Amino acid sequence: HERVITDHFINEEVRDEDEIEEPGEIIIAGYGRIGTIVDRMLLAAGYKTTVIDYDSKQIDMLRRLGARVHFGDATRPDLLKAAGIDRARVLVIAIDDVDSVTQLAEYAVQNFPDLHVIASARNRHHVYDLWAVGCRDIIRETYDSSLRVGRSAYEALGIPRAKSRKMVEAFNDLDHRAMLEVADSYDPALPLEKNDAYVARVKEMRGPWEQELGNRIREILRDG
Amino acid sequence: HERVITDHFINEEVRDEDEIEEPGEIIIAGYGRIGTIVDRMLLAAGYKTTVIDYDSKQIDMLRRLGARVHFGDATRPDLLKAAGIDRARVLVIAIDDVDSVTQLAEYAVQNFPDLHVIASARNRHHVYDLWAVGCRDIIRETYDSSLRVGRSAYEALGIPRAKSRKMVEAFNDLDHRAMLEVADSYDPALPLEKNDAYVARVKEMRGPWEQELGNRIREILRDG
Repeated sequence: HERVITDHFINEEVRDEDEIEEPGEIIIAGYGRIGTIVDRMLLAAGYKTTVIDYDSKQIDMLRRLGARVHFGDATRPDLLKAAGIDRARVLVIAIDDVDSVTQLAEYAVQNFPDLHVIASARNRHHVYDLWAVGCRDIIRETYDSSLRVGRSAYEALGIPRAKSRKMVEAFNDLDHRAMLEVADSYDPALPLEKNDAYVARVKEMRGPWEQELGNRIREILRDG
Repeated sequence: HERVITDHFINEEVRDEDEIEEPGEIIIAGYGRIGTIVDRMLLAAGYKTTVIDYDSKQIDMLRRLGARVHFGDATRPDLLKAAGIDRARVLVIAIDDVDSVTQLAEYAVQNFPDLHVIASARNRHHVYDLWAVGCRDIIRETYDSSLRVGRSAYEALGIPRAKSRKMVEAFNDLDHRAMLEVADSYDPALPLEKNDAYVARVKEMRGPWEQELGNRIREILRDG
């Protein structure tokens, strides 16, 4: 982790942090595979973004026009302040380390109630952790691609595209509902496999879930 | 890597590999975050899947009804044969190791021309590698979630949902086209940063791409 805060602009100009006058409307913490794409999407729409990343390997990727870049650990309140978190509208958390994502989400949600916090979650367990600290916009980092792989498999097996899409939506609906139905049994202090109430609840619900999912998907296959 | 091939069924029954009589229509290599979801999607639609994974930590997840599971290294031709690759319709490659994904994709594409091969790619570089070995259904493992994060940010910034969706589609279209436009300069024998032709081509195209993307997205923002 880079502990010295410096601010770079694409034109190689180096500025002190107190010179940052016009912070971005969106702070993107983590400039890896997800952060870079989100940044390009927002810049293309005319928004101003501020990127925080501690990984010097990302520097090459940061050499683009108009970038506001802070090097450092995005979980540090002083760095977030320098990046303008008190005036930002959206914080996108897309850093690699699972615990840092949760820590930053908790800090942001608790201290900046008007800020919209979007967090990238490693997996389902991480979703529950983020939910427990108050984050309400949580996106699992490989979930959507999994759905796309599944849809592609459906189509390769001869299912028409429109049906395949509906089947994916049905799966997604049920997956979300299932996650909420067991969320009450989650305890952030316990690993999932040691949480007997959670394990019992999942075991109890798995049969009905799979049955309902199968029914809905076969209905789509039959009737379109 | 587990080197001994054994076949497990959920009911704890252990069978020799030559007893596998009815192979799945779909082989899923890798039972991690992506493989598990794709498996559930296909089972729900009534397909038979065969899962290959070498990670014993996944065993708990494999304890589900009807699972055909082979433990071992999915890049091994003998294991693929035991899993029924010569009769499978679809192979989903969702293993963690980037080089193993490419190696397996190459083997499958070259030896089983009727098999539909879907590969999960780590990043854009990996997409080019997979393309170079003949794989034509390639899904970047965090790309779709990145688009969803971007769409969520658009909506949090007040852009209506329908417009946000259109903007994401415009981004996706251009991103795909851009990737194809520089694919010719890719050389699998060279790391991207040492491939001068590729770097020059990306530098040349980046401005026009970003401009076209910005134009299309602002048009959607203005006109819907």
